[in-house]
Amino acid sequence: MSSTNLRILLKARPQGRPGPEHFQRAEEPRPAPQQGEVLVRHRFLSLDPYMRGRMSDAPSYAAPVALGAVMEGECVGEVVESRHPGFTAGDWVRGARGWQQWSAAHGSTLVKLPRQVGVSPSAYLGVLGMPGTTAWIGTTEILQPRPGECFVVSAASGAVGGVAGQIAKHMGARVVGIAGGAEKCRFVTGERGFDACVDHRGDLATALDEACPSGIDCYFENVGGAVQAAVFPRLREFGRIAFCGMVAEYNQIPAPPGPNLMALVRKRLRLQGFLVNDHPRAWKQWGETGATLLRDGRLRFREDVVQGLENAPEAFAGLLEGRNFGKLVVAL
Amino acid sequence: MSSTNLRILLKARPQGRPGPEHFQRAEEPRPAPQQGEVLVRHRFLSLDPYMRGRMSDAPSYAAPVALGAVMEGECVGEVVESRHPGFTAGDWVRGARGWQQWSAAHGSTLVKLPRQVGVSPSAYLGVLGMPGTTAWIGTTEILQPRPGECFVVSAASGAVGGVAGQIAKHMGARVVGIAGGAEKCRFVTGERGFDACVDHRGDLATALDEACPSGIDCYFENVGGAVQAAVFPRLREFGRIAFCGMVAEYNQIPAPPGPNLMALVRKRLRLQGFLVNDHPRAWKQWGETGATLLRDGRLRFREDVVQGLENAPEAFAGLLEGRNFGKLVVAL
Repeated sequence: MSSTNLRILLKARPQGRPGPEHFQRAEEPRPAPQQGEVLVRHRFLSLDPYMRGRMSDAPSYAAPVALGAVMEGECVGEVVESRHPGFTAGDWVRGARGWQQWSAAHGSTLVKLPRQVGVSPSAYLGVLGMPGTTAWIGTTEILQPRPGECFVVSAASGAVGGVAGQIAKHMGARVVGIAGGAEKCRFVTGERGFDACVDHRGDLATALDEACPSGIDCYFENVGGAVQAAVFPRLREFGRIAFCGMVAEYNQIPAPPGPNLMALVRKRLRLQGFLVNDHPRAWKQWGETGATLLRDGRLRFREDVVQGLENAPEAFAGLLEGRNFGKLVVAL
Repeated sequence: MSSTNLRILLKARPQGRPGPEHFQRAEEPRPAPQQGEVLVRHRFLSLDPYMRGRMSDAPSYAAPVALGAVMEGECVGEVVESRHPGFTAGDWVRGARGWQQWSAAHGSTLVKLPRQVGVSPSAYLGVLGMPGTTAWIGTTEILQPRPGECFVVSAASGAVGGVAGQIAKHMGARVVGIAGGAEKCRFVTGERGFDACVDHRGDLATALDEACPSGIDCYFENVGGAVQAAVFPRLREFGRIAFCGMVAEYNQIPAPPGPNLMALVRKRLRLQGFLVNDHPRAWKQWGETGATLLRDGRLRFREDVVQGLENAPEAFAGLLEGRNFGKLVVAL
């Protein structure tokens, strides 16, 4: 068992696209747990678009990662040694432990994972973790699609979008995904069971008109940019948008303007942003609901697994450009 | 009693500012009521920003006025002759009877006004009518200010804004108006009892920072344009905007872009448009609540009364430029 702890630190704040030059590797001895702490061997690290915000020191809902500090991120891992009564060696846990191989974490900062048969522990970073819970909140609390409504979700092959569309489908909506490229679109309508999927690399306006001939009732916004510009004028009366993220714009400085908002009056639209952290009860709700759906074969997910912590910076840059296919995780 | 009916017809659809050249006067004989109809002598005509939309044939929530047809508008008037069992001569009524002096209206299209002591019947076009009801919905249903929150409303000396701010004040909010010019601002803080009022003709950003040092929780949007651009970045976390109208942009073609919407995620904002017509029960609610507040001296209103139907086109053009001071009505 390695006695060193490889860590990825934030070296510089990117203006535009982040790349390996903004990160720095460091090694330190494997930490020793103090009383109340648990030594965790990280097995999977989650890479998510929100991390782009943590690299910037612009005002936001969360403090930025300090220069020289380990990058923030959620991990799942195995307990190797426990000095906390709630954990024993061999437990699987989840926690915001950062881009590193090991950590000594106070037990109160870790969640013990259920022993779920047939699901990789990495699922607790994706379909049953933060992205799945995000999809659950945006769909069931913010958008609230009604049977027969047209529900559109961007980044539909991704960690959040794929779950959001499946939940909306279970709620009776007609679900249209937006994804980049024919292969992702086939996956979204095939494996994920959406009613249609349009490729944002083609003529998006025409494709949306064909896929949503009566207009769009609900839009789960993950990307912004040209996709948002195409969806917005197609919203129907009483349409709503759940703003989860706008990943296509995260590297754009300054941020581009948005749509004229008079349509909100004419069509009585509701536009609402949300963050998973504001909804602590939703984690447990979705954890149970999502596990049931998985067990019953009514929820599908796909992971894009990158091997080795040293490859995380480049994989993260690709995530912001849509180069991943499914939930992006790093296997350590 | 005049035997002719002066009417103002829509002559042409304006591109930009509407003026007298887009209207046309016509005279016809005073109409005779048929069985079930009521002959109404119009006493006041309401002029409201939404009428700009009716002059355009762009897609909207309501059909445009046809070229050559009488302009749409709400009136209050006196019943002169009734062939409907629900009305008798001398009753005061309100109805969407258009820019004309007389009409023969089916009884089902009219609302009989209560005999309210001490309020001009024109109040049923403003503080107790559509604008007051609009303020009630936007404030109590869409924005829902909590005690101590900072509530900002534009066009604060106008028909809707003035009532919205007073309702928010009764709900315990700290209320800041935005109005054009020192005289209107003095009126808003004096007569209307707002906590502060900032002049959008000055340095609006600095004035808002001073009036709302912790930021803005609720914004009742009536104007759009530069005012919206100054308010938007000052919204606090969990802030919301009720979109009632954007009168500063109604003559702008094409419509200018709006703000980048990533702030909706970062601050968990809610932006929601509404129309009074979608809330039929609110009319009665506000009719009763507003009358009680008026009677108790807890609600103030101001009218800007223009004499003569022939002056309606120019007065309407001025309304879109903020030249009125209080609810604009035409006395016929």
